[in-house]
Amino acid sequence: MSTANYIIPKTQKAAVVPSVGGTLEIRDNHPVRQPKDLAPGECLVKLECTGVCHTDLHAALNDWPVPAKTPLIGGHEGVGIVVAIGEHTQASPVKLGDRVGIKWLAYSCLDCEPCRKGLEQVCDHGEYSGFTVDGTFSQYVVSWTSHVTPIPKGIESTEAASILCAGLTVYRAIKYSNAKIGDWIILPGAGGGLGHLAVQYAAAMGLRVLAVDTGSEKRDLVLKLGAEKWIDFKETKNLVADIKAATGGAGPHAAVVTAANSAAFEEAVDYLRPGGTLMVVGLPGHGKLTADIFFTVTKSISILGSYVGNRQDAREALDIAARGKVKCFYTVKPLSALQETYEGLAKGTVVGRVVLNMQD
Amino acid sequence: MSTANYIIPKTQKAAVVPSVGGTLEIRDNHPVRQPKDLAPGECLVKLECTGVCHTDLHAALNDWPVPAKTPLIGGHEGVGIVVAIGEHTQASPVKLGDRVGIKWLAYSCLDCEPCRKGLEQVCDHGEYSGFTVDGTFSQYVVSWTSHVTPIPKGIESTEAASILCAGLTVYRAIKYSNAKIGDWIILPGAGGGLGHLAVQYAAAMGLRVLAVDTGSEKRDLVLKLGAEKWIDFKETKNLVADIKAATGGAGPHAAVVTAANSAAFEEAVDYLRPGGTLMVVGLPGHGKLTADIFFTVTKSISILGSYVGNRQDAREALDIAARGKVKCFYTVKPLSALQETYEGLAKGTVVGRVVLNMQD
Amino acid sequence: MSTANYIIPKTQKAAVVPSVGGTLEIRDNHPVRQPKDLAPGECLVKLECTGVCHTDLHAALNDWPVPAKTPLIGGHEGVGIVVAIGEHTQASPVKLGDRVGIKWLAYSCLDCEPCRKGLEQVCDHGEYSGFTVDGTFSQYVVSWTSHVTPIPKGIESTEAASILCAGLTVYRAIKYSNAKIGDWIILPGAGGGLGHLAVQYAAAMGLRVLAVDTGSEKRDLVLKLGAEKWIDFKETKNLVADIKAATGGAGPHAAVVTAANSAAFEEAVDYLRPGGTLMVVGLPGHGKLTADIFFTVTKSISILGSYVGNRQDAREALDIAARGKVKCFYTVKPLSALQETYEGLAKGTVVGRVVLNMQD
Amino acid sequence: MSTANYIIPKTQKAAVVPSVGGTLEIRDNHPVRQPKDLAPGECLVKLECTGVCHTDLHAALNDWPVPAKTPLIGGHEGVGIVVAIGEHTQASPVKLGDRVGIKWLAYSCLDCEPCRKGLEQVCDHGEYSGFTVDGTFSQYVVSWTSHVTPIPKGIESTEAASILCAGLTVYRAIKYSNAKIGDWIILPGAGGGLGHLAVQYAAAMGLRVLAVDTGSEKRDLVLKLGAEKWIDFKETKNLVADIKAATGGAGPHAAVVTAANSAAFEEAVDYLRPGGTLMVVGLPGHGKLTADIFFTVTKSISILGSYVGNRQDAREALDIAARGKVKCFYTVKPLSALQETYEGLAKGTVVGRVVLNMQD
Ligand SMILES: [Zn+2]
Ligand SMILES: [Zn+2]
Ligand SMILES: [Zn+2]
Ligand SMILES: [Zn+2]
Ligand SMILES: [Zn+2]
Ligand SMILES: [Zn+2]
Ligand SMILES: [Zn+2]
Ligand SMILES: [Zn+2]
Repeated sequence: MSTANYIIPKTQKAAVVPSVGGTLEIRDNHPVRQPKDLAPGECLVKLECTGVCHTDLHAALNDWPVPAKTPLIGGHEGVGIVVAIGEHTQASPVKLGDRVGIKWLAYSCLDCEPCRKGLEQVCDHGEYSGFTVDGTFSQYVVSWTSHVTPIPKGIESTEAASILCAGLTVYRAIKYSNAKIGDWIILPGAGGGLGHLAVQYAAAMGLRVLAVDTGSEKRDLVLKLGAEKWIDFKETKNLVADIKAATGGAGPHAAVVTAANSAAFEEAVDYLRPGGTLMVVGLPGHGKLTADIFFTVTKSISILGSYVGNRQDAREALDIAARGKVKCFYTVKPLSALQETYEGLAKGTVVGRVVLNMQD
Repeated sequence: MSTANYIIPKTQKAAVVPSVGGTLEIRDNHPVRQPKDLAPGECLVKLECTGVCHTDLHAALNDWPVPAKTPLIGGHEGVGIVVAIGEHTQASPVKLGDRVGIKWLAYSCLDCEPCRKGLEQVCDHGEYSGFTVDGTFSQYVVSWTSHVTPIPKGIESTEAASILCAGLTVYRAIKYSNAKIGDWIILPGAGGGLGHLAVQYAAAMGLRVLAVDTGSEKRDLVLKLGAEKWIDFKETKNLVADIKAATGGAGPHAAVVTAANSAAFEEAVDYLRPGGTLMVVGLPGHGKLTADIFFTVTKSISILGSYVGNRQDAREALDIAARGKVKCFYTVKPLSALQETYEGLAKGTVVGRVVLNMQD
Repeated sequence: MSTANYIIPKTQKAAVVPSVGGTLEIRDNHPVRQPKDLAPGECLVKLECTGVCHTDLHAALNDWPVPAKTPLIGGHEGVGIVVAIGEHTQASPVKLGDRVGIKWLAYSCLDCEPCRKGLEQVCDHGEYSGFTVDGTFSQYVVSWTSHVTPIPKGIESTEAASILCAGLTVYRAIKYSNAKIGDWIILPGAGGGLGHLAVQYAAAMGLRVLAVDTGSEKRDLVLKLGAEKWIDFKETKNLVADIKAATGGAGPHAAVVTAANSAAFEEAVDYLRPGGTLMVVGLPGHGKLTADIFFTVTKSISILGSYVGNRQDAREALDIAARGKVKCFYTVKPLSALQETYEGLAKGTVVGRVVLNMQD
Repeated sequence: MSTANYIIPKTQKAAVVPSVGGTLEIRDNHPVRQPKDLAPGECLVKLECTGVCHTDLHAALNDWPVPAKTPLIGGHEGVGIVVAIGEHTQASPVKLGDRVGIKWLAYSCLDCEPCRKGLEQVCDHGEYSGFTVDGTFSQYVVSWTSHVTPIPKGIESTEAASILCAGLTVYRAIKYSNAKIGDWIILPGAGGGLGHLAVQYAAAMGLRVLAVDTGSEKRDLVLKLGAEKWIDFKETKNLVADIKAATGGAGPHAAVVTAANSAAFEEAVDYLRPGGTLMVVGLPGHGKLTADIFFTVTKSISILGSYVGNRQDAREALDIAARGKVKCFYTVKPLSALQETYEGLAKGTVVGRVVLNMQD
């Protein structure tokens, strides 16, 4: 094992869900896995900060069709420093002292059919931070040298944290949406945590952004971030008609829908331009997408599930942000604010992203 | 106008739906549009035969969300001879005496955005045979020189008729399914009118075909046509599990679903391999596709609406058939059998395709 | 024929090359094809202005492997007003009074295999402005309603003229270069007529532009237009090494090479990143591209011929410019300046593009 | 380390090139790396057989622009059994006793940009069997668990050996050639070691194969293997014209050129259909590809370097062969025949592939 000069404490602060449906506990004395106990390929990361995400809420509530481990430390948007690497690790792409990110996809085998085809996110042997393995709501996290993401210079760790999940998710969705420079993309929820990042990534590629959300604050934000047009869904009398009108009559070429309700998908098939693409990126506990078969066929609509992103997508999303093309709006809080953040997420009252300072 | 030596009668046999929901009438004295009345770009085709299709039934019943013209002559799978071309027609790709096919897409403008991008099927100004314009259930049909499909040598007109709709539809769906040589494709309804053609096109591309249908007759047929595995959906206790097992555990790479019921789509998201593609090709009067959002995303499934095919797809589908790679199973009947054929289609008792002899 | 209120003169000013290798003559009394003599599908355009291009020089010199017509009126970057449409024209996408552009590809059949696949530029029956048919160095030009390009609002005709050839050519090359947001693209000759447009299109898509040219004036220009890095090829001691260094060590992902000398291509295979793409867009009279086979293979380089662009590419290139993302640097001159412009192009002393005012 | 019951000898037979340009020596007492000396991630494979390839000849002669290691054991088409795995190896995809193949690409880091994008062949840290590391002309070879290729059931080891290099190379080239079912592909050298495999892969995908080679023996072979047309290049008076005629006048959609001479590439740009693709797969010591710039552009030709294949390509190529779609013609010889095989390859007198029995 390599540990250089890093002093690794025996215990740490961590937010633990002790059992299925149990109450979140902030503990001071959670054990830290020691360097000598790391397997080959594993590394220990001392976290500076970590974002909080809707996905964490699902993991904590265990309301997905696939169960989370318990006891569980959630969190999958962490940034920190590599302070130990397991002995006998082969050809690690990172070294001690590197600043790295922990993302949702903690591990993929890089060998199965999906991995060989670049679809690491759907690896047959994938591990997921804060879900199948302990995540980043702790001061130290164990991860894999092959999958921690080097953080480029020029970006704050708190900023990078949100890019690692929200930014990555929307970046990949836009990248695979078939939309090209000059094409219209519609972003329902454009003023939200994912949406405001999507506006910026889309604008940076030369897409024309139609932002949909509500309220003048969000309107001003998204127009400043690069959206070309705005529709307040509470003020429109006919959303589909207004969307078509805003995009020259034919409707947008692509939509990135993060919502979990069936209506959002049916509507999208309605307002998309023939040949258009509907990117599906939400991960609700339950929820079906529905679409009219007749119009899906006669409009030749593509409905594409897009799942976070692979290692390359993560590098690209970070690089674009580090070069100043994308800025995240977030608030920094202590780990103790996690429970109230969950409650805010459940109620929909969280503005921007929340990032926890793990060394606080 | 060019008419060479063709003698064009004033009246013809035709099957007419006189009004919305009206009874089909076989008439002997339906007028034939005369060569001098053809607009530039139009041509008159003397039909040898025409296929009958589920789509015609929808047009006749007028049960789609978009209304058909009335009075209506249905039919969109016709093969015949060009016997007149409108005066002042520019650069016609066909000439008098050419054997050509009439397909569902009767006309596209070749100028709008979808047309410029090769998506003629979703042209802003499209016309559809037997739906927005009169079709092939008559002895003479007016169509457009730019869109009639030259029929290659080496294929019977009766065979070509079915390729022009059923063959084209499944050919395009398979072509755009992302499936490559050695990949598994599942074809529910493999023994049916579309399915048995799909089996052959898929096998000709080197795909491994898992055929799903019921009955030993269909089983024998599809295995003979090139399917590698067979599942009788009436005999399986767990269709999804059996499909996965038949394809090495991971599920097929692609599915072509022609059914109209929601369950078929939900099931497909379930059994498809991560990264897999679900081609949607049915055109039910009403019907929603539904899919679990969580699994569509976490399996990165693509759901693609595929609408018949464009002029190039039609050429390819015919060329493959003309070279003997695909054979259609059909029965030839007189035009007077149209009503009973509709009834058979509605009940699901039609085996293979029905082709009407229009000169009978 | 439709002519509305337009008065069409019998004669016009035109620049004519009377015979192969003959001297360019500016004539005052060249006949104008009259509306009644237009074939169906043809239209008459009264030109406001037209760009001058290297291609015109080749056509005038007749030094390509394929001969130009003679006598020849050159020119293929014209903008003007539709003043007549041939009688019996089918479904014209333009109408009298529309402002339209004439581009290199004057006509494609929209029916042959390349056309059906969207490769109109390589149509089996293509016609080329100022090469196989008379072009825009005259006050009136006959073209085809299906291929004149509607000019969007918000762009000057003189600006649009250059986009129709130089802009279109580089836009398509970049669009098909496989380069994505955040990728490096190298543009040798970035400060020239094609290059300075390429810089802007590339930047608008989020590409990182490495501009290569010489002189501080060009340097200042390209950096202002969005290039991120600059190399003066006259000042570098090792161009390949400097290019790699400027792009993080690995070399650019894509190169758009407009030069005609073999060395430029060999060099590109050398400096491109493994997996990189070399876009070939020049049209020299004679000239071979050469590349080391060993490195083309072991670096998996793609070398792609890119030929102007099709109707959709032209719409996109103009739309991007009309929205202010791309500005052309050009000088307006009278038609009488054509010969001196040719001489300037041959000597390489023309700065930016030259646009001729055809109503002067 | 895991060694189970395998007894690993201290020495072995091996063919060694002792120094740059030195004479090949068949040694009986070459040391075998012992299991305890394997690094994590390495494995020891006991070889059954290994193919001999032109590439080995280049490595032995050291006539490439990149030098081979010395002393060198060549060979990169081996099949054998995993008899040891390095201690502390992480998540090995293979286990003791597995039958695996050794291919040209011995190792890629799976982390660099090319690797993350699926271009493992151009990995920044790649290792190549029989070139940068010792290869398969020995009874035991050390390789990497992440890159040895599991050999599917149903294929002889001697057959698999040739698929691992020749088969893989042509399979990938065809797969990336953009040719689709019904398209024409031309295979110069169709009767040779690579060519006869290419014929079969192409036919299995539904491509129409135009085979070019010389002699009635090769003609009979390729027609039996699935070629549709044949041209004897020694008998034709105008190869380009004959190729166009054989493919309906327009030329093939794709060409796979393995030759090293410039003329073969220039010719291909000439005979390919507009929009066609030229796959470059040869690895000559020296040699330039040249192409006319004017026609590369005006025909929109794509020239693509294709370098062996990645892990997924290898699995696919083997799977197709194991299912009986592709058979290799080869002769089995003892290791002592290596030198004479090299001489035969240099002279061009080797028919089919030569496979060495390593346990002989
Ligand atoms: Zn998240
Ligand atoms: Zn995996
Ligand atoms: Zn039909
Ligand atoms: Zn259209
Ligand atoms: Zn030009
Ligand atoms: Zn054409
Ligand atoms: Zn080899
Ligand atoms: Zn690598």
